Amino acid sequence: MKQHPIAIFDSGLGGLSVVRELQRLLPGEDMVYFGDTARVPYGIKSRRTVAQFALEDARFLLQFEPKLIVAACNTASALAMDALEAELPVPVVGVVKPGAMAAVRLAGSTPVAVIGTEATISSSSYFKAIRALAPQLEVITQACPLFVPLVEEGRGCDDAIVKLVVETYLAPLRAAGVGVIVLGCTHYPLLREAIAACLGPAVQIVESGRETALAVRDVLRRDDCLCAERRSGRLRCHVSDNPARFGRIGSRFLGHDIEHVELVEPERYIASAIAGHEGV
Amino acid sequence: MKQHPIAIFDSGLGGLSVVRELQRLLPGEDMVYFGDTARVPYGIKSRRTVAQFALEDARFLLQFEPKLIVAACNTASALAMDALEAELPVPVVGVVKPGAMAAVRLAGSTPVAVIGTEATISSSSYFKAIRALAPQLEVITQACPLFVPLVEEGRGCDDAIVKLVVETYLAPLRAAGVGVIVLGCTHYPLLREAIAACLGPAVQIVESGRETALAVRDVLRRDDCLCAERRSGRLRCHVSDNPARFGRIGSRFLGHDIEHVELVEPERYIASAIAGHEGV
Repeated sequence: MKQHPIAIFDSGLGGLSVVRELQRLLPGEDMVYFGDTARVPYGIKSRRTVAQFALEDARFLLQFEPKLIVAACNTASALAMDALEAELPVPVVGVVKPGAMAAVRLAGSTPVAVIGTEATISSSSYFKAIRALAPQLEVITQACPLFVPLVEEGRGCDDAIVKLVVETYLAPLRAAGVGVIVLGCTHYPLLREAIAACLGPAVQIVESGRETALAVRDVLRRDDCLCAERRSGRLRCHVSDNPARFGRIGSRFLGHDIEHVELVEPERYIASAIAGHEGV
Repeated sequence: MKQHPIAIFDSGLGGLSVVRELQRLLPGEDMVYFGDTARVPYGIKSRRTVAQFALEDARFLLQFEPKLIVAACNTASALAMDALEAELPVPVVGVVKPGAMAAVRLAGSTPVAVIGTEATISSSSYFKAIRALAPQLEVITQACPLFVPLVEEGRGCDDAIVKLVVETYLAPLRAAGVGVIVLGCTHYPLLREAIAACLGPAVQIVESGRETALAVRDVLRRDDCLCAERRSGRLRCHVSDNPARFGRIGSRFLGHDIEHVELVEPERYIASAIAGHEGV
């Protein structure tokens, strides 16, 4: 099992920011990634649709016999973890719980802010995960639906639109005196500097991707499944649409070029789901 | 055939701005709408995926025996009209050609600007349609990827972010001295005032939806298929996800409340497509 890959899925390319953290922490592990770029984004969709898509994504990855699957999409982690854990035959790690744990660890008695997509925030998953750990902690949530398109358009932290949007969303959080902010979307680390500049140096920033990589290591160590060899792991990426766009924008999330991106035909990930839907 | 409905599809809810124009012009017609809200948006996706989705959307609508199908999505019209016209057994009207014709009619010798999604603009469909009619006309295109999320978030024309984004995208068009601008996305009419304020009163604005409604009337009149009765037509809406969100945001596009929104299960629009894909 030690030689088997870690599988990661996301609605699109944002999950590559989680892969980046996994590669930093576990450089010897092979990884296989599926980005559902044909149906991206998930953040404006319903729980039932997100759960269905997440299951299809994960089932597609099972063919690679992974030792663990990472739901690198905050929206999928927020809306579909129960369905994934119930169905998948391997451990599943989402990004919500690790992010919530880090927030509680850092917060002390200061309020915690959580930002994410429309669906992630309205699911209250981060809120519930934090309150389960610290029932008294004040949690303030804010959907930031413009952040993903801003990042995908390639706008950086010194862009005037980015600065105005960050200020518009985050000024109420600053005014509320939050001590910690959780970046509850895999795109948001690319806006980290603008978020830090808006909130000031006293506010600590939690990137769920980093925390998730630590959680993956913990699970693999517990199961004695960490790759023991000193070597450089391989990353294979699969997408349901537009491999060129994925490679171009995705390299900014990954921190280096993406060598292998394969286009997956719809019947390879949808047909099984429809069969599943019909109870076959 | 006169009593059969007009069918309209879109990647999501933007096509309701075309329905609004159809209802104004042809109030007696029954209409049936499909919004593919499970896979929205199309504007960041590839030609092959957009064509596949558009065919699935249109095939779903065939069950209602429409007398005509409107591809109310600019991206689908820009990338998939050939596929739709080749496959569908009824007339298909897209939004690109009517918009291009209006632009040429109004432009005189001034340059024409076209704005749209990333996929619509990079397809060059508007550019080609305008140049086919007026080979000498200068055409300047600009993708405006933030406009759709701004509208869907409910931001209006006096919002500071909207003003800054409009200015950022359109200042180069103003500097180029355009005389006409085509709103090549069904969401953009909701930003019309901000666009007009930025470009000034000398620039004429073409809304493809309005022109498309006129084109639909022309085709139905030509085929002697206009509904002859004096009555109020019925609108039935179907979506692949999230009917509540569709109803809430969509009413802003339609100009009145939406009475009937039905959720369509994936096997009702995807299964046939997979069968089609396998050559069945």
